Amino acid sequence: MKPYTLHGYWRSSCSWRVRIALHIKGIEFEHVSVHLVADGGHQHTEEYKRLNPMRQVPTLYDNTHNRALTQSLVILDYLDHMHPSPALYPSDPLSAMAVRAACETINSGIQPLQNLGVLQQLEISFGADQAAKSAWASHFIGRGFEALERSLDTTAGTYCFGDTVSAADVCLVPQIFGALRFGVDMAKFPVLTRINDACKQLEAFQRADAAAQPDAQ
Amino acid sequence: MKPYTLHGYWRSSCSWRVRIALHIKGIEFEHVSVHLVADGGHQHTEEYKRLNPMRQVPTLYDNTHNRALTQSLVILDYLDHMHPSPALYPSDPLSAMAVRAACETINSGIQPLQNLGVLQQLEISFGADQAAKSAWASHFIGRGFEALERSLDTTAGTYCFGDTVSAADVCLVPQIFGALRFGVDMAKFPVLTRINDACKQLEAFQRADAAAQPDAQ
Repeated sequence: MKPYTLHGYWRSSCSWRVRIALHIKGIEFEHVSVHLVADGGHQHTEEYKRLNPMRQVPTLYDNTHNRALTQSLVILDYLDHMHPSPALYPSDPLSAMAVRAACETINSGIQPLQNLGVLQQLEISFGADQAAKSAWASHFIGRGFEALERSLDTTAGTYCFGDTVSAADVCLVPQIFGALRFGVDMAKFPVLTRINDACKQLEAFQRADAAAQPDAQ
Repeated sequence: MKPYTLHGYWRSSCSWRVRIALHIKGIEFEHVSVHLVADGGHQHTEEYKRLNPMRQVPTLYDNTHNRALTQSLVILDYLDHMHPSPALYPSDPLSAMAVRAACETINSGIQPLQNLGVLQQLEISFGADQAAKSAWASHFIGRGFEALERSLDTTAGTYCFGDTVSAADVCLVPQIFGALRFGVDMAKFPVLTRINDACKQLEAFQRADAAAQPDAQ
């Protein structure tokens, strides 16, 4: 058995973050696909709910220590703790907090507002069609990217913070996939675009890409 | 001048988190009210945007080191770093991650879906009235609280994690205020209710309460 099992979904940006981190650190893992759409969503089964009470992906299971880990940013912390090198955060605490703030801009400021569950609820509550759902997602991604573009402009080198890949890049790349999917005009965000292009050159990001996953459709 | 200036809003749960943390640690701070509703929202001014590109509250300004800090969970990290005692997280890293996961369940799993900006956007995009907005907020708070009730049931003592106040309590109490405001049936969540009642006995939580703020209406 491999040391970790990742319960995820190819297009879930939070699952994708964890895949990037695992590949950056060279950690072997099994992929278990939790199909978020089929049969009303496999994340809602009683079995999965025991693993992840929020009924969200990802859940990372540490097979060595028998621990189920939830919340992608906490999973990144766990991987950094158990497998320190290469680190996902700078060693200086204040620099690490700056990276963390960029991560949170995506993790709490963008992603929750445009994920599948929310778009489904827009349809249930307001009869939103695909165009309305995309407009909603695009609005909130754009708002967050404006803030990120502004702040990363002062910190970026090749990547979000200088020339070392960090957790901020791990969060950014999957969110840009979502942005393109929902029609965000990325020409307005040259810094984010440049960082995304740089990350896409790296094998860890290539292997973690949504399209490269066994459950990609 | 006091060591910190908190740019916040009385009813903002994320501002409230930071107020609790400041009071727990006995740190003096000036309160600057950023009215989220008046004049289309004071968080949208160019001046505030320079401080907080996401145009959200809170921003904590460290007047000693001239640093603007954003993202409430990162601000809690900063306060724990600069003023370690009493700590908001357990010293053991794995226990700290468990607390962090509970914080993230609220911070990314609940709060973003029911804050003022999202409810306003529901009105703009779908013509949602107050009842529809409350139903939306209540739905997502309920989903998150179901997960929290389930997981905290295994960790709680007097507070979310044992008998020591942690960042999880700091996040939970303001979210319960939101839950009550939007009509969530808290009878379904006895563990959360009991923890909230216990926290409300503490002076730090009393001083940080929305109703106790100078800008409360």
